[in-house]
Amino acid sequence: MTVVEAVRWSVSGDAVDIVDQRALPARLVRRELRTVDEICDAIASLAVRGAPAIGVAGAMGLVVSLAPLTDLGAVDFLAAVHRAAERIARVRPTAVNLAWAVRRVADRAAATSGAAPAMHAAMRDEATRVLDEDRAMCDRIGQHGLTLLHDGARVLTHCNAGALATAGIGTALAPIYHATSLGWKIAVFADETRPLMQGSRLTAWELVQAGIDVTVLADSMAASLMRGGAVDLVIVGADRIAANGDVANKIGTYALALAARHHGIPFYVAAPWSTVDAATATGDDVEIEHRSPAELGDGFAEQIAPEAIARYNPAFDVTPAALVSAIVTDRGVHRAPFDFTAARHADGREG
Amino acid sequence: MTVVEAVRWSVSGDAVDIVDQRALPARLVRRELRTVDEICDAIASLAVRGAPAIGVAGAMGLVVSLAPLTDLGAVDFLAAVHRAAERIARVRPTAVNLAWAVRRVADRAAATSGAAPAMHAAMRDEATRVLDEDRAMCDRIGQHGLTLLHDGARVLTHCNAGALATAGIGTALAPIYHATSLGWKIAVFADETRPLMQGSRLTAWELVQAGIDVTVLADSMAASLMRGGAVDLVIVGADRIAANGDVANKIGTYALALAARHHGIPFYVAAPWSTVDAATATGDDVEIEHRSPAELGDGFAEQIAPEAIARYNPAFDVTPAALVSAIVTDRGVHRAPFDFTAARHADGREG
Repeated sequence: MTVVEAVRWSVSGDAVDIVDQRALPARLVRRELRTVDEICDAIASLAVRGAPAIGVAGAMGLVVSLAPLTDLGAVDFLAAVHRAAERIARVRPTAVNLAWAVRRVADRAAATSGAAPAMHAAMRDEATRVLDEDRAMCDRIGQHGLTLLHDGARVLTHCNAGALATAGIGTALAPIYHATSLGWKIAVFADETRPLMQGSRLTAWELVQAGIDVTVLADSMAASLMRGGAVDLVIVGADRIAANGDVANKIGTYALALAARHHGIPFYVAAPWSTVDAATATGDDVEIEHRSPAELGDGFAEQIAPEAIARYNPAFDVTPAALVSAIVTDRGVHRAPFDFTAARHADGREG
Repeated sequence: MTVVEAVRWSVSGDAVDIVDQRALPARLVRRELRTVDEICDAIASLAVRGAPAIGVAGAMGLVVSLAPLTDLGAVDFLAAVHRAAERIARVRPTAVNLAWAVRRVADRAAATSGAAPAMHAAMRDEATRVLDEDRAMCDRIGQHGLTLLHDGARVLTHCNAGALATAGIGTALAPIYHATSLGWKIAVFADETRPLMQGSRLTAWELVQAGIDVTVLADSMAASLMRGGAVDLVIVGADRIAANGDVANKIGTYALALAARHHGIPFYVAAPWSTVDAATATGDDVEIEHRSPAELGDGFAEQIAPEAIARYNPAFDVTPAALVSAIVTDRGVHRAPFDFTAARHADGREG
């Protein structure tokens, strides 16, 4: 089984080697990023996307971009590290993982005594830890989530919470990869996920690479598929999980949860523990990003909506905890009643 | 208020004047159809679409295509009528309205004594009746459905069951047009309706023409919109209504009905009485058309799904009667418990 590596060190170690997700599914294009400009551009243009993958790419990118400057004096080198870190973190200011991962690497440099080469070696070590931790987090989610699957399971998912969104084997798709590596046959239904089509473009592509049976459907078809008895369970990712278990995730998740409940189908959420936010009491406290109206109407070969109309284009929705069967994190399988009010992130951030 | 006329006689009466729906929403292109080839091509290519509109266009098309042949002898003329009628009816063999409307016009010719010009005049009269009956049917649905609306109502709809699908003011949209002509302010939310985008391309366009407030959203967003309290009621059309009230309609309707029920929002179906099929006991007896996998993945400027995957692409779904608040036909507002087992079509066809 081949699981795509969305972010890794290049063979020589002097670049961040990413899958350029803008070219998918038509072509697999890998790019090597070396400069701050290249890293910022890759993150801004969504060549690399998914909160975990962005964090890892930013951390590793900071390291490689500083490589040409190791003959600077220690003070000048550290100043350059901070300048580059700030530039990278600023590309997607709401991506908590990005700022956090980049800061980890910069802080490691600051905490290292000695000359620039020693600092740089410590930075590389720290970025490699960020990378390895992300992979381990995915593996643990996969192991915990495996307990919810069975050989022959037919799984519906939404958007892309897979390998392409992390440096490892993904979150919602991690249990599916683990099951497949055990020889279980899993059939995946991938919602295409309007408007940006992460399901058909990315989830379907990475599952095909791994030889996993995948069928794409329009988001509006999922309820009928469930009614026809073709779905055993639903697994989706999460952008944020509130203290009460409400789940903010890609728009369309909520409609799936309603349909799953109506049909008595388990609805699972798989996400890093760092997604659990104890400071958010309920889903009502999550501000939902509304995206460009152009996403509804443009992007097809031909115009598909009149220019003169309003377009409602939220990027995410909130699924109330009451509709969630279980939340799988790298810490285990959490079941209702959910109480994450005491959650602290593994890295010490407030929950 | 301007409601688009999808099918009408040309000013000179020698052609069928249609809106070419393939060019919408970018351009309003009207075309005049005169020959059997032009009529068949317009129906086959979906330049004219929607069961009522197709029937009317076919009936009128048969008339205009025979105009050059009225100097034939009566026997030869009638043979030409039957040949043309058969060709037109065969373009979309599952479109019951088309075969029925074309046969009405051909039968009228056969029942007319005298020479070809007299037959042709009778055919024109019959096709005009088909046209007028369709318009009257739409108006009656609009009047009945008006009782379900109020000034300021916020209405969610799916696909296009509007003027573009009929020769009149539509079915699901007819109550909205009536309300607007009373001066009521109605806000419409139009699901874009993947995969063919009839909601954003057609419904949004025709409502804009009429000066009605319309907002397009992706199908997956409707449930969140309801949860946010932004929707007062749902009105959709129907392709077939079973004897028990189960409703077969454009894929995605069922998911909407589930979401509406969960949020306590009325879910209405508006359709011609001829859509009620007493011979279909329940929705389980409706065979659902599955369409080309190409519709999921092609049609965008860029490929949006890998070539190598399965694609699930049903055109319709079935909404159980238990989720339907009322069914509006040209005969009135029908409420649960639905029992259409004694239904007969107005034209004498079996239900």
